[in-house]
Amino acid sequence: MNKVRLGIIGLGTVGAGAVNLVARNQTDWKQRRGLDVSVTCASARDLSKPRDCDLSDITLIEDPLALVESDQVDIVVELMGGDDLAKRIVERAIELGKPVVTANKALIALHGEQLFKCAVAGNVPVKFEAAVAGGIPIIKAISEGLASNQIKMVAGIINGTGNFILSQMKEKNRSFKDALQEAQDLGYAEADPTFDVEGIDAAHKLAILASMAFGIPLRFDRIYTEGITALQSADIGYAKEFGYRIKHLGIAKKMHDGVELRVHPTLVPQKRLLAHVNGVMNAVLVKGDAVGNTLHYGAGAGAEPTASAVIADVLDLARDAQMTDGHLGSHPVWNVPSVPLGFLNDGLSDLPIKGSDEFVSAYYLRVDVRDEVGVMSKLTTAFANHGISLEGIKQKEPNEGEDGVSVILITQRCVEKDLNAVVGELSALPQIQKEIMKIRVEYLD
Amino acid sequence: MNKVRLGIIGLGTVGAGAVNLVARNQTDWKQRRGLDVSVTCASARDLSKPRDCDLSDITLIEDPLALVESDQVDIVVELMGGDDLAKRIVERAIELGKPVVTANKALIALHGEQLFKCAVAGNVPVKFEAAVAGGIPIIKAISEGLASNQIKMVAGIINGTGNFILSQMKEKNRSFKDALQEAQDLGYAEADPTFDVEGIDAAHKLAILASMAFGIPLRFDRIYTEGITALQSADIGYAKEFGYRIKHLGIAKKMHDGVELRVHPTLVPQKRLLAHVNGVMNAVLVKGDAVGNTLHYGAGAGAEPTASAVIADVLDLARDAQMTDGHLGSHPVWNVPSVPLGFLNDGLSDLPIKGSDEFVSAYYLRVDVRDEVGVMSKLTTAFANHGISLEGIKQKEPNEGEDGVSVILITQRCVEKDLNAVVGELSALPQIQKEIMKIRVEYLD
Repeated sequence: MNKVRLGIIGLGTVGAGAVNLVARNQTDWKQRRGLDVSVTCASARDLSKPRDCDLSDITLIEDPLALVESDQVDIVVELMGGDDLAKRIVERAIELGKPVVTANKALIALHGEQLFKCAVAGNVPVKFEAAVAGGIPIIKAISEGLASNQIKMVAGIINGTGNFILSQMKEKNRSFKDALQEAQDLGYAEADPTFDVEGIDAAHKLAILASMAFGIPLRFDRIYTEGITALQSADIGYAKEFGYRIKHLGIAKKMHDGVELRVHPTLVPQKRLLAHVNGVMNAVLVKGDAVGNTLHYGAGAGAEPTASAVIADVLDLARDAQMTDGHLGSHPVWNVPSVPLGFLNDGLSDLPIKGSDEFVSAYYLRVDVRDEVGVMSKLTTAFANHGISLEGIKQKEPNEGEDGVSVILITQRCVEKDLNAVVGELSALPQIQKEIMKIRVEYLD
Repeated sequence: MNKVRLGIIGLGTVGAGAVNLVARNQTDWKQRRGLDVSVTCASARDLSKPRDCDLSDITLIEDPLALVESDQVDIVVELMGGDDLAKRIVERAIELGKPVVTANKALIALHGEQLFKCAVAGNVPVKFEAAVAGGIPIIKAISEGLASNQIKMVAGIINGTGNFILSQMKEKNRSFKDALQEAQDLGYAEADPTFDVEGIDAAHKLAILASMAFGIPLRFDRIYTEGITALQSADIGYAKEFGYRIKHLGIAKKMHDGVELRVHPTLVPQKRLLAHVNGVMNAVLVKGDAVGNTLHYGAGAGAEPTASAVIADVLDLARDAQMTDGHLGSHPVWNVPSVPLGFLNDGLSDLPIKGSDEFVSAYYLRVDVRDEVGVMSKLTTAFANHGISLEGIKQKEPNEGEDGVSVILITQRCVEKDLNAVVGELSALPQIQKEIMKIRVEYLD
């Protein structure tokens, strides 16, 4: 029986979930793998606060850096969130040669390059399966299960809060504001929901997925990010009439001449499985040159789903270490070199990251115009003049007493620069009554 | 750069796919992992036959056992299928201490216990990701990505041919016979389709999934197996009216008092993602105690999707071996012990495997009766007498000139023995015109 002792930093939702999961399933891991996993130490900002787990056999340490240094801790499990103190904690662990498991997407997206440089230099493993899509083993799928592929595209619903809001808007015909309120009431959204609804959280995760999928540096700063706050339930309805669902996707595409990295609301054909992922669930589509399209679905957040991924990382670490006298111990020797992003440094691709002008996509446009003779011709001519083909066009009946109508247009694939030129021209027409709504369409084929 | 030399046995669809995949992506693996993977030798029954891959740099060896013994081969890749010669090949490789990668589900399901005993004794890894659900990394998800969980259920569409036939029956309202013919014309089904349509292929895969998920022996012989040949497109339509799709599922459930292992047509609520998996695609739902429900979707067959999984296994093996002078070599030392099914032998659960009488499920029944006063009361009374609640009941209008009607009943969950007693009673009624159609309903929640 090999012993592995965890020190957990952060006893919020996920930390408590990890403590509970270890308590419940440690007998199972003993039988299955001959591995004795226990939580020996824990740390939290306020140790007097009541927690959703039994801490009676766990040594509580106020200073997280002292926990990192404790000789009772073999693996540092960072579940506190934030990126400042968390970074110092992970740096210290790496300095000491202690392996790290973290669920902290912001930390990895913002400071991963720097941390991993130290980790690789010291051959210290840093694992972060729980940082992307919660319980779904998507990091493992990309870096191991599909490792024989050249990954062409990753596209995912990677923020459960946003997906819950969109699902409510679609199913109950609610406004964004009302759906957000419900998400907050249910505890799915924070009091300040900016990270979720503006796509920042999704962009953190996409930076990690794209880096691992394509072998490129972590480039959170280069991700085009658009939130869901401007979406109207009318657009969700119109999209449905054309056979689409609107989802907030993180999309990374690799082309011969560059990489597209983007987070935005997206029309997805309803025949795609991704279109049917509802509520707080996450799903990530991975397209490989050999395997084709795969989809990986599950809970993207929550105490135990996230803990599931955290402990899976722990079990991987235990497999990859040479145990000494039945212990992982404080200075383990690793059988497998530390390659946190799944590629060697000189395997990095230097493909440029494209600006949004260069994106190639189809587009959904809602153009609100005065209902005049000839206006449809003006609209369609503008597209034709820029060489953009239309896939569908539909004029909605005006509401009683209104003189305006919504015209819905769906284009074929084109370059966004050209599309924007059309939108600019149309916006200048005197018949246009509101800002033109533009949403990208992805076939995901 | 570490060298890994593959010997591929079998140059059919998957073998050729593997040769092509290595040729196309080997540069990528060099850059990413510092790994030089090549196919040095290949073997096939008829070496003169033209193949869908370039064999010019590959030494062709007629006798597969000679390939296994070749000092040019570090990893034996068994892609010939069948279970007799394949077994001897894998046995020989294990004897010689050579790692094996296979896509052969029948081999693992029927002979896995015996082969793995030798593999564990000799500490020789045997990997078989491609044996279940083609390119979907489901073996890895269960044994690694979700390893922290107690798995409660696995339920999957794990035969693409069967799913294609059912999709055709639903979408085009075709008979089973016509849909099978189309599957054969398109090359999805063999001339003798028994393995696919009778559920034998799915049962092979389910045996493997259940063993790994629950830590039980491989028990193909104990799987209750029902094919799709008796399904009628009318039932697919009726199921749809109740909000269900009919899918051919492999289902393994772990309860406190035993394990259910079954392959059969199943009504799945249309709100489940699994209900929307169409055509030749596969998908496997895995339910863990911590993670909840996850779904893993992708191509379940085909040259390159299967090769994707085969080579992922190769890359795992290369990671787990100690390279000597930059070679995997003929007698590698393994950093990780060989545990092919993902659990130590003494981790085996001894839960009994339940007979079909003990299954707990909801049921769809189509009862064709003469349209007489009081017949509905007779039907519903029979269920009530056995303590079975009905979830829904619908009488279909009779076709013109017919005196019979189809009555569709959906029960709540009950024990199959009780349900069978009701079916027995009903079948004896003089009003019954045809054999009663019984299909299990799974909520997959």
